[in-house]
Amino acid sequence: MRSLAVVMMLALGFSTASAEVRTKVVEYKQGGTTLEGFLAWDDTVKGPRPGVLVVHEWTGLGKYVKSRAEQLARMGYVAFCADIYGKGVRPSTPEEAGKTAGTYKGDRALTRARINAALAELRGNPAVDGKRIAAIGYCFGGFVVLELARSGADIVGTVVFHGALDTPTPADAKNIKARVLALQGGDDPYVGSKDVLAFEQEMRGGGVDWQLVQYGGAVHSYTNPDAGNDNSKGAAYNAGADRHSWQAMKDFFAEIFKQ
Amino acid sequence: MRSLAVVMMLALGFSTASAEVRTKVVEYKQGGTTLEGFLAWDDTVKGPRPGVLVVHEWTGLGKYVKSRAEQLARMGYVAFCADIYGKGVRPSTPEEAGKTAGTYKGDRALTRARINAALAELRGNPAVDGKRIAAIGYCFGGFVVLELARSGADIVGTVVFHGALDTPTPADAKNIKARVLALQGGDDPYVGSKDVLAFEQEMRGGGVDWQLVQYGGAVHSYTNPDAGNDNSKGAAYNAGADRHSWQAMKDFFAEIFKQ
Repeated sequence: MRSLAVVMMLALGFSTASAEVRTKVVEYKQGGTTLEGFLAWDDTVKGPRPGVLVVHEWTGLGKYVKSRAEQLARMGYVAFCADIYGKGVRPSTPEEAGKTAGTYKGDRALTRARINAALAELRGNPAVDGKRIAAIGYCFGGFVVLELARSGADIVGTVVFHGALDTPTPADAKNIKARVLALQGGDDPYVGSKDVLAFEQEMRGGGVDWQLVQYGGAVHSYTNPDAGNDNSKGAAYNAGADRHSWQAMKDFFAEIFKQ
Repeated sequence: MRSLAVVMMLALGFSTASAEVRTKVVEYKQGGTTLEGFLAWDDTVKGPRPGVLVVHEWTGLGKYVKSRAEQLARMGYVAFCADIYGKGVRPSTPEEAGKTAGTYKGDRALTRARINAALAELRGNPAVDGKRIAAIGYCFGGFVVLELARSGADIVGTVVFHGALDTPTPADAKNIKARVLALQGGDDPYVGSKDVLAFEQEMRGGGVDWQLVQYGGAVHSYTNPDAGNDNSKGAAYNAGADRHSWQAMKDFFAEIFKQ
C-alpha cells in the first residue's frame, strides 16, 4: 500500500503538465501471498477521481488487461489490474490456465479474498475517490468481479465481459451493493442459456440493479483481438460487439460515477 | 405522399432560422384504408437526414409516441409515427386495445402491409436520406417493427422497446436486412424467458446482426411514465430502464446512421 501511495503522490504532486498515461507495477499482498498488480493513470488529472479494478482472463494478468487499464486511464480513471493468481503465476497453455482458474472457481472464499485485497489497494490510492469504484472483468475475471460483488464489497458497479456467470450460492446476491452490467456473447458456447437464465434468477432473487446484454454473433472472448476470428473455436474477436460493449460500459460509468 | 412532400418543401425551403420542432398530421393510405400518421422534424436542420419510424402501443397512435417523435426530431431526425390501425381507430379500453392489437397479431400480412405503407411515406419525404431509415416500436409497436424487418424491408435498424418478440414464422428472419436491438424488461411478465430464448434462436437462425438487452427490475411498458409505478401490475414505468434504453438506442443510431 505504502509504495503505491508514494508513487501516486509523486505522480500527482510533482508531475509536469503532460497528458501522458503513467503506469506502474505494484506489489501488494493477500494473506502470505505476494501479488503483482498493474496501475495506470493520467497524471494531468487533478483531484480524486473514480477508480476501476480490471480483472484478467484465465491466463493471468497480461498485456490485454494492461491495455484496457491504459484505455481507462486515458478516460481519466485510475485503473488497477488485480492479480488474482500471485506474482509470477502466468499460465502459458490452456491446460495450465484451466487448472489455475479451476482452483479459484473451486475456492470462492480465496477468490473473494484476492479480489478484495486488490480493491483495498486501489481504495488506498490517494488519487481515487473511494465512493466511486467499479470493477470490470474479462472471462475468468468476469467471474471474479461477480464474486467481489457477491462478497458485499462497497463498490458502485460491476461490469462483466463474456464472463462465467454461475454460482453455487445464488443467495449471496442479497449482499450485492453494486449495480451489475453483464455483457455476453449471444453465441458463447461456454456460457449458455442455462447459465444466463440462472444468473437472471440470481439477480432477481437478490434484488440487484442488473442489466444483461447479449451480442448476436459474438462468442467467448469477443473483446480480445488476440482471440482470432474463427467463431467455430468458441472464442473469437468480434469488432462490433467489442465496440458496443465498451460503449455500454462507458454509458454505465457515466451514470454510476455521476456526483 | 404529395401533401407530405409539399409540407416538407415548405418547411425546408421557406423556414426561418428558429430551432423549433415542427409537427404535422399526415394522411396516407394502405389499400383502401386511410391512415393518419404524425410527422415531427426540426426545420433548422438542412439537407437529407436519417428518418425514424415510430410505432405505437396497443392503444394506437397517441400522445406517448408523439412525444417520442418530438424527442427524435430534436435530435435532428425526421420522425414519423405510423398509424397501423387506421384513422380514428384509437381503442380507449384495454379490452378494445387487446382486440384490435389481436387482429394485427393474427394477420401478420396485414401488419406488414400497414407498416410498409408508413415506411414508403417516410421514404418519400424529401428531407429523409432513404439509405438511413430505422424503425422503433413500443409494446405492440415492437411486434410491428419486427414484422417490418421480417418482411425484408430495406432499413438499417430496428429498435424494440418492451415488445412482443414471438413469431409463427421464425424462418422469415432470413429476410432481415436491418440490425436489430431489442430492449426488454428483465421482469416483463408478458414477454418471458421462453419468448426471449425463441427470439434469440430466430435471430441466430436468420444470421441477423442482433442485440438483446434486459433491464433488471423493469416490467412491461417500462418507458412510459403513464404506466404508473406498480410492478405487480405487470406494466409500470421504470426511470432507470427508460434512461438506459434511450441511451442504448442513441448509441445504436450513432452507429447505424454513420456515413
